[in-house]
Parts: sequence; C-alpha cells; structure tokens
Amino acid sequence: MSAAIENTDDLRLARLQEILDSGAMHSAQRLLKTLTPAEIAHLLESLPPTKREILWSLVDPAIEGEVLVNVSDEVQAELVKDMDADHWRAAAENLDLDDLTDLVQDMPETVVGEVLSALDDQRRHRVEAMLSYPEDTAGGLMNTDTVTVRPEVTLDVVLRYLRRLGEDMPADTDALFVVNRDDEYLGVLPLWKLVSGNPDDTVAEVMSLNLKPLPVDLSASEVARYFETHDVTSAPVVDEQGHLLGRITVDDVVDVIREEGEHQFMGQAGLSEEEDMFAPVLSSTKRRAVWLGVNLLTAFLASWVIGLFQDTLSKYVALAVLMPIVASMGGIAGSQTLTLAIRGIALGQLSGKNARHLLLKELAVGILNGIIWAVVVGIIAGVWFDDTRLAALIGVAIIINLLFAAFSGAVLPLLLKRFGIDPALAGSVLLTTVTDVVGFFAFLGLATLFLV
Amino acid sequence: MSAAIENTDDLRLARLQEILDSGAMHSAQRLLKTLTPAEIAHLLESLPPTKREILWSLVDPAIEGEVLVNVSDEVQAELVKDMDADHWRAAAENLDLDDLTDLVQDMPETVVGEVLSALDDQRRHRVEAMLSYPEDTAGGLMNTDTVTVRPEVTLDVVLRYLRRLGEDMPADTDALFVVNRDDEYLGVLPLWKLVSGNPDDTVAEVMSLNLKPLPVDLSASEVARYFETHDVTSAPVVDEQGHLLGRITVDDVVDVIREEGEHQFMGQAGLSEEEDMFAPVLSSTKRRAVWLGVNLLTAFLASWVIGLFQDTLSKYVALAVLMPIVASMGGIAGSQTLTLAIRGIALGQLSGKNARHLLLKELAVGILNGIIWAVVVGIIAGVWFDDTRLAALIGVAIIINLLFAAFSGAVLPLLLKRFGIDPALAGSVLLTTVTDVVGFFAFLGLATLFLV
Repeated sequence: MSAAIENTDDLRLARLQEILDSGAMHSAQRLLKTLTPAEIAHLLESLPPTKREILWSLVDPAIEGEVLVNVSDEVQAELVKDMDADHWRAAAENLDLDDLTDLVQDMPETVVGEVLSALDDQRRHRVEAMLSYPEDTAGGLMNTDTVTVRPEVTLDVVLRYLRRLGEDMPADTDALFVVNRDDEYLGVLPLWKLVSGNPDDTVAEVMSLNLKPLPVDLSASEVARYFETHDVTSAPVVDEQGHLLGRITVDDVVDVIREEGEHQFMGQAGLSEEEDMFAPVLSSTKRRAVWLGVNLLTAFLASWVIGLFQDTLSKYVALAVLMPIVASMGGIAGSQTLTLAIRGIALGQLSGKNARHLLLKELAVGILNGIIWAVVVGIIAGVWFDDTRLAALIGVAIIINLLFAAFSGAVLPLLLKRFGIDPALAGSVLLTTVTDVVGFFAFLGLATLFLV
Repeated sequence: MSAAIENTDDLRLARLQEILDSGAMHSAQRLLKTLTPAEIAHLLESLPPTKREILWSLVDPAIEGEVLVNVSDEVQAELVKDMDADHWRAAAENLDLDDLTDLVQDMPETVVGEVLSALDDQRRHRVEAMLSYPEDTAGGLMNTDTVTVRPEVTLDVVLRYLRRLGEDMPADTDALFVVNRDDEYLGVLPLWKLVSGNPDDTVAEVMSLNLKPLPVDLSASEVARYFETHDVTSAPVVDEQGHLLGRITVDDVVDVIREEGEHQFMGQAGLSEEEDMFAPVLSSTKRRAVWLGVNLLTAFLASWVIGLFQDTLSKYVALAVLMPIVASMGGIAGSQTLTLAIRGIALGQLSGKNARHLLLKELAVGILNGIIWAVVVGIIAGVWFDDTRLAALIGVAIIINLLFAAFSGAVLPLLLKRFGIDPALAGSVLLTTVTDVVGFFAFLGLATLFLV
C-alpha cells in the first residue's frame, strides 16, 4: 500500500463503523477532522439510520452546511428534520453562494426568511437573484463570484490587481472573464495564460475567444455536454443581451453528470436518484408500492389477454408452459432497443432526424434475432411436446413479438419525450406492457386459430 | 434566443443532416471548423453509417486523432477500419500524451511500432511509461505534463519561471506541484493562490497540504470519487515511494463518471457502454443474440418449473391466467432492491459491513408490500374467478415471492462482486431467474397441494 491515500471507502467505512460500535466518540471526531465535507456526506449516506444520527451529531457545526448540500435530498431531509432556525442560520454561514442557494431551496418556508435576513446585503441580494433561476438550468448551477477584467489593460496590471484582491480572490478561480464597460462578456483569460504570458501584453492580445458563453436558461444537461465537449473547468453565463451573470464550475457539472447517470439507471426500476439506501421501512414501502401498483396494472392486462384464451389453454396445457418464453424474449429484446434509445435521447444524439434510421436498424436486428430464436425455441418446444404445429406456432409468435419489441423500444421513448413524459421512468413499464400483451396474444391467438 | 450558444445539439444535428443531404460539402466543412473535436465526435456518433463516413472524410486531418479519442470504442473501430500506417501517424501527431496513450492502445499491433518510432525520444519514452499502467487506474488516466516547483523559492521566482516557460506551459495547468530534490510530492500550489499571494512569500508558505496524492494503482472509479469529494480540477499521482509521476485532470474524470453511469444503465440490458447506436445490423444481431440466449435459459428454466405442474394447470386453467402476475410482481420488487444495491456497490457505499442492515430493511419492505399486494391481487382474483381458495393461494405466493425477491436483490450483487462477476451485467438476469422460478413454483406448488 502506498503512503498516499491509504483508505479506500470500504476500509474507512469499516473503521468508522467499528469506532461507532465501540462508542469511542473522540476517535470518531478525530477521524471526521481528516475528511472533506463531501467525504463525510458520502459516509453518512453509507450508514444505517442510528449510526448516521450519531455521526451527524459529531460533525463540526462550521461545516454542517457543506455536508448538507453534498448528501442526497432524502438523506438531507432525514438529517434536518429536527433543525431549528438558529441551527439553519449557522449551517448557512460559511457556504459559497451557489451552495447557499441550493440549501435555501431545501429549507422549510418558515426558516428561509430568517436565514436570508441574517446575511449581509450583498450576499442576500445575490442569493435572491440566483433563486430566480430554475435549479436545472445554467442559472441554477452558476455562482456569481467571478473576477472580471477589461481587455485594454496589460497582464502586469491584472497581476497587480489580483495581488491586491489577495484573500478576497474566490477560491478555485481558474480563469478571469473579460468584459467591456457595459459588462458584456468578450472572452476568457485563463490563469495559466496570465502567468505564462508577457506582462506587457494586453488582455485583449492574450485572451481566448473560443469559449462561448452559456445562456442563463440553458438546461443543466446541455451545460454538462458543453463542459464535456470543450474540456473546460469553468464557463461564463450570460443573459440574453450578453451581460456576464456568473460562472459555472466543473465540480457542479460533475454532480449533474453523476445524477443523470443515476436517474437513467434508477428510473428503470421506478426509483429516484435521490433514493436513500437506508430510508425508513414505511416510507420505502409506500414509494415502492406505487411502482408495484403501476406494474400490477400491466400484469393484469396481460392476464386479461391470457384469460381470453382459457378454452384453448384448457385443451393444450403445453401453451401455458411455453407462453412465458414468448413474452420474456420480447421483453429482453425490447429493453435493449429501449436502452439505446433512452441513452441517445439523454445525450442529445437521438431525435426525430435520425430516429427513422435507428428504427429500421432495430427492426432488421429484430427480424434476424426473431428468426434465429424462433428456430431454436421451435425445435426445443417441438421435441419437448412432440408437436410440430406447436413448434411452428411458437416460432412465428416469437418473430412477431420481437418485431413489436423493436418498434416499441425505438418509438416509445421519443413519443414519451414529445409528450413531456420522462422516458427513463415510464419507458420500461410501457415496453413490458407491449411485449407481454403482444407475446401472449400472438402465441395464444395463433394457437386458437391453428391448433384447436 | 440569446447571442451565445444558439444551437442545441438537436438544431446542430438537424442542420448538419440537411447539409449532408444537400451535398453542400463546403458548408459542412465550414460548420466543422466551428466545432471542437469532442463536438465533432458527438455528431459522428449521432449519424447513421453513410453520413458518418461522409462527415469523417471532411474532418481536418490535424484533429482526427482528437476526434478519435472522443468517440466510443465501437464507433472508433468503424472509423479507423481502413486507416493505413501513415494516416495513423498523422492522427497521432498533435495529441496530448494521455490521449496519445489511449489511441495507441486502440491501434492495430502492426501500426503501433511505426507510430511510436515516429515520435521524438522524450514523447516516446513517456508514452511507453504510461502504456505500462492499466487503463482503468490512476496511472492509465494521468498525464505526465506536470509543472513542478521547489518549496523554498518565492512566488516571484515561480512567476518568472512560468513566464520563461511561456508557450511551453502545458495548456489548462491550474496548479503547480511542489516536490523536493528527490521528486517526492510535498503539496500543491494552485495558480489562483500564486497570483493572489505576496510575491515575497515562499512556495512552502502558500502551498496547500490538503491535497493528498493518488497512488498510481488506484482504480478509476476511486479516482472519480476522490475528485467528487475534494472538488479539485487536477490531482497529483505518485508511485509507492511518493515520487510524483503525473497529474490527472478533471476532464478525464468526467469521462469516467459518464461511463460508469452508462455502464450500469446499459449493463442491465446486456449492452456495453461503448455500444454504437448505429452499429451494423449483423454485428448488433450477433451481440444481442448472445444476451437473448442467456435469457432464454432463464425462460426455459421457468417453463420447466411450470411443466412440473401440467396436471394441476389442466384442471385449473385460472392458474395459467394468473401465474404471470406472481412472477412479475416479484421481478419488479426484486429489481428495485437490486438497483439500490448495485448503485451502493458502485459508489463504494455498500459492502459486507452494512449489507445486513440493507437486507433486513428490504425484507421488511418486502413483507409489507407483499401483504398489501397479496390482499389486492387476492381480492381481484377471488372476484374474477369466484374462488376464495384461489384468492388465498395467490396472496401467499406473492408474499413468498416478494420475500425471495428482496433477499436475492440485496444478496446477489454482493455475492457476484465477491466472485469477480460484474453485478451490473449479471444481476438482473439472475434476479429474474429467481423471481420467475420461485413465483411459478410457489403459486403452482401451493395450488397442487391445496386446490387439487
């Protein structure tokens, strides 16, 4: 093991749990002192409720605010449920403006006024301005702590200006923004260009014009894509007239990307990306019940379809044995297409323009795989039940279902998006409905026509 | 629309497709000139094969290498399939060392030697050194273009040194690393501290000691978590003796986080995060067929279980109508637990230490939801088929299946991880196997015991 980061999360978590079990609170506090607020947040999320409460009580009040903005919404709600106004005010005290704005949005209504009025005028005005932008836009992600310079001054003047700023320079500034007299954004002067440039050059000569500013209403996911495709660590945000409003830093973009990934992954199971692994049993049960209820409708629809063919089923019990295979193959194939389409939409790579091509390709894949697996399943079913007509029927049903699966997998997400419904959440339920209903209907319907 | 970024991806994609359709290649080339290599990569991924080829032929050879490292592996393989050694050499020419190292790993064996020998000695040695680290470790992510300073010099001396470096200063440097005579890492001097500090202070007085260096063998996902919990934009990488080897920049970490999210999401459908939306039909069919085949085994296992109860089914056809409900409710409930567990493992928040608590909580949720839905489904089934014994049976079967689902959802991912199998890929297939088999067995088995 190297002398550097000794503790992977596992080790750290294990040690902390041991300490909490043994009740050696001083050791726990000493451990906490070596961690960043985000690391503490990460640990809090990893702990079951009782230990989470103990750890939270040990956190230094000076960083409580920072810890709170770093835990997921659900864990946050759990931690703050008994917090009074004084406590909130203390937590808000040392926060960056963007974090403070986030935290204010999660405060109980009754506390917000008190916390805001405790801020000095400048901070309060800035927070109020930032609160006016929706959370999932460039405006909601930005911080207003930009350092601006004029294009006509020399690098030497800029350096002297920064030295005068001294401690007041916003932490983690990696670039200065160049604006004109009207505060209109002109370009960016990265610090690495400032320090490596000739002191007698003007800002205008050295600044970069490649970094286009982000409109304040740009969606958070487009902001993320901008950072990914431009490899920048901060970007300017402007209003419609091009006035500089603030900057977005990459650490907030990283959170957006992490959340987008979790949203897609967890949405398919009807969970929110904010879901707390150790949420209380009752609230978990309630939320899960909703999702199970939605899916039960799907399941009953499929049952109803099967119910239409009770006569056929009672004559050929082999149909009951084999029918889940037809539905299941359709579900699996469809979910592959659906997954591709949802990712494509999320990345902004799939839209009405190229959807036709994806649809045709997926239909072709569906037909080919339909034929392959029709043959395989047909042979196995034929041998198992010694019935060639049954073998042919299940083969045809599989081909039909895989075609419908490909069609729904490609078209459903785009359709849902057009109607403003989140494909990551609703896509898989609807797809399963299609593949179950079509699968059972095709298989049992064909059997009723040709077997009975 | 603001004067800033006018084109969302959708608009840009639409315009490009129009241009490509109209054959106005000059307009396309003009559009390409306004885009970063990563944006071109993004567009290439969004285009169907024929248009993708046309666009690729219009890309400026000087940035081809950068475009290639930004597309997914599959699209890259498609683009380079006819590239000869000269072409590869040209593509490699303008790349950063870390990008070059990535690209070399994707080159055909026959070309690698030629491309490497065309590099100057220093570049070649550095690339060869970086090739020795696995891609998914800190070593594989790092770049060796660090700027180092000694602790005893003053900030003024540092500034003069950087000015002498001038154009040779690595782009996007946001911090200098402080090392001793033996090249051992001591601390970091962010540029914003350098420019806002007193020129007469020494580096040792100003540098930050909080940034622990990353061991070269740290896994990529732990590197990502380190960046997330420390809000840094670059971090030093050291060997076992603490010697500085290079730096990791946040742009590469952003890619890791994006890929982790996609891996989880796409893995559940048996797809790779590198999957090309417009992959050729035949290769798509082949890969999908493998996944369908794996799932077919599951489906046949379930069919075999049903087959055990053919006598019962032929007497009570209502069982065939209702049995998919039992399997489906188990599958949905289990996938919720599974999803939570997979995310917990991926984030390093779930391990043997707290798994017991998750298991108990999920079992409790499973029992409660089991009871709720047992009652609902029981009543509906009882009324539908006018049979109270059937109603009781399906209720009990649902409770049993939801318990097994909660157990498997919580335990399977940890078990898979212990055996070195990727839970994101294998978890959902195995879970469905359990919930199908248990669901059918419980329902039909109980029916055989108590109904017949």
